[in-house]
Amino acid sequence: MDTIANAITIERAKTSKIDQVDFNNLAFGKVLTDHMLVCDYKNGAWETPKVVPYQPITLDPSAKIFHYGQSVFEGMKAYKDSEENVWLFRPLDNHKRINISSKRLAIPEIPEDYFMEGLKALLKVDEQWIPTSEGSSLYIRPFIFATGTGFHASPADEYKMIIACAPSGSYFAGKVKVLIEETYSRSANGGVGFAKAGGNYAGQFYPTQLAVEKGYNQVIWTDDNTHEYIEEAGAMNIFIRINDTLITSPTSDRILDGITRKSIIEIAKDENIPVEVRKITVSEVVEASKNGSLKEMFGAGTAAVISPISGFGYRNEEYDLPELENSYAALLKKRITDIQYNKVEDKFGWRYKL
Amino acid sequence: MDTIANAITIERAKTSKIDQVDFNNLAFGKVLTDHMLVCDYKNGAWETPKVVPYQPITLDPSAKIFHYGQSVFEGMKAYKDSEENVWLFRPLDNHKRINISSKRLAIPEIPEDYFMEGLKALLKVDEQWIPTSEGSSLYIRPFIFATGTGFHASPADEYKMIIACAPSGSYFAGKVKVLIEETYSRSANGGVGFAKAGGNYAGQFYPTQLAVEKGYNQVIWTDDNTHEYIEEAGAMNIFIRINDTLITSPTSDRILDGITRKSIIEIAKDENIPVEVRKITVSEVVEASKNGSLKEMFGAGTAAVISPISGFGYRNEEYDLPELENSYAALLKKRITDIQYNKVEDKFGWRYKL
Ligand SMILES: Cc1ncc(COP(=O)(O)O)c(C=O)c1O
Ligand SMILES: Cc1ncc(COP(=O)(O)O)c(C=O)c1O
Repeated sequence: MDTIANAITIERAKTSKIDQVDFNNLAFGKVLTDHMLVCDYKNGAWETPKVVPYQPITLDPSAKIFHYGQSVFEGMKAYKDSEENVWLFRPLDNHKRINISSKRLAIPEIPEDYFMEGLKALLKVDEQWIPTSEGSSLYIRPFIFATGTGFHASPADEYKMIIACAPSGSYFAGKVKVLIEETYSRSANGGVGFAKAGGNYAGQFYPTQLAVEKGYNQVIWTDDNTHEYIEEAGAMNIFIRINDTLITSPTSDRILDGITRKSIIEIAKDENIPVEVRKITVSEVVEASKNGSLKEMFGAGTAAVISPISGFGYRNEEYDLPELENSYAALLKKRITDIQYNKVEDKFGWRYKL
Repeated sequence: MDTIANAITIERAKTSKIDQVDFNNLAFGKVLTDHMLVCDYKNGAWETPKVVPYQPITLDPSAKIFHYGQSVFEGMKAYKDSEENVWLFRPLDNHKRINISSKRLAIPEIPEDYFMEGLKALLKVDEQWIPTSEGSSLYIRPFIFATGTGFHASPADEYKMIIACAPSGSYFAGKVKVLIEETYSRSANGGVGFAKAGGNYAGQFYPTQLAVEKGYNQVIWTDDNTHEYIEEAGAMNIFIRINDTLITSPTSDRILDGITRKSIIEIAKDENIPVEVRKITVSEVVEASKNGSLKEMFGAGTAAVISPISGFGYRNEEYDLPELENSYAALLKKRITDIQYNKVEDKFGWRYKL
């Protein structure tokens, strides 16, 4: 590990953009920090990562990223506590997952030390960009894409990993209204839905636009075969509370294995909340809404944290969720963010000090 | 139309690379011509296309193409006849299809005259790059990708269309051996399989690599639900001849509506070949192979033209196709390429003179 950490070179930006940023009014992922990490894959190997000023990338028009969508990414956050210590949340799981995604997309895996030491070097240089205002954090975006060229539809021979960061506020402005989708689908059995592959996201834009035009914020995807099973949302896994039981779909090759999701499952169990990881049908949720046993629905993801759902649409009917005093969403959000921001003890060992 | 044609500016390359190219030994899509067409979408509109020297593109690292795979493309060819006239094949269908793809990917549609007049202007400048050697042509690659920036998973506000060209020989070196896939899938019901979306191709690389390691050239995709129905190959639609009947799957939201496929259907009918456009099961093909009624299989696509399949693998068994004297593949390939290269009359009205 030490060898790579020592080899990483750092080229500092001549001027900083930080004074132009209003840290009390941060949008999500719009303002980028002064630096980025770059790591190239050439001649069959990853080269030494470098921290460089944030700058444009120059590529040949026949680079395969433009033609064949060969790309994967991750989403992480850095949190600053009241003593200005910097924390990551389960970052090794992001490293593992980017390699799971890369394998499915025929992209070479990135060694753990290149990813982790590169990330640490970058965060040290841009440390003052990590916001401290309530609900804000530094959103971290590692991504890998095909730079190798040619119009033959086959894997590229060269790739670039970049890690870029954006001080960010909340992903959603308020409560989230969702549409349960029955026409379009996010992923196929045996497809790439479990991977954070670029193409999975572009495919969701159009159906999501149609939902937005109808007054929803997000689509809840169902399986592409029967449209009977709740899968996940665009960038969040979905939790459903019926009476006092918290239910979430099992992961599969169609569903992203979310780090927030699995953390929430553990915290809920620790809170003695009955948790069921099982397939859940749309009709069950509709039924529960009608008979009053549907108490809560929320999304869980790094960007969205825990986002309570205020209601859902299904087959041209609207279903509202009740307003609860002691919601699981509020409880679980507090517990996970308290761990992330180092406000409480971390009995799970998830926090990672920079 | 005239207005756009007149507005297109042309900046010529200072030097040409054409002397470095061995036109008698062309690979597929490796050598690019001297120029490219560029057309930007900004502030809600497509700007006037420009012909410029082929050159690198510079993009912000947060451009959405790198993160969310928002891209579509087309594949066309320009053919030169013995009198040096240049021909395209059904180019308006490529324009229609790129817009069908774009709509599904939430990319703004490109007007017909921008696409066609831009393409014509480019081909006039690079006309001497169109090869004349047997079996060669100029492969044309129009592609559109998201240049707008930001980490929010939503459609970009800026896009770039580029048309680049590569003088090319055959896509496959010889006959093609295929594996009928039962584990991985190419597309979902309600997904983006019918679109030429970048992400569809990256998702095929890994399963194709696994097939290549087992000695196959390509995967034949089956439906993701039952894996019982033959769909298409990576960049070709599939035709199967049982006794004297030519069968191909109907197109769907999972299958690309290939221009070669629909042309072959028309030519076959014109040749009084019985054609069936219907679902075809793997067991039917295996059965036909066992009882000797399976005569031919071939792929059809712009890049692959008509590529005869020499055999297929399924559930660890190998099935060989017979060598035929008068194959449909040979007959149909001759008829379509004779039209494309202006060697015969074009009763269908498919040829398009530059
Ligand atoms: C499709 C999808 N589902 C779920 C999630 C949540 O995963 P995580 O909690 O690891 O951020 C994400 C990513 O943020 C996602 O893109
Ligand atoms: C997935 C797929 N199927 C089929 C085809 C054949 O389509 P066309 O004949 O229009 O080239 C292509 C493109 O070349 C393709 O990418």
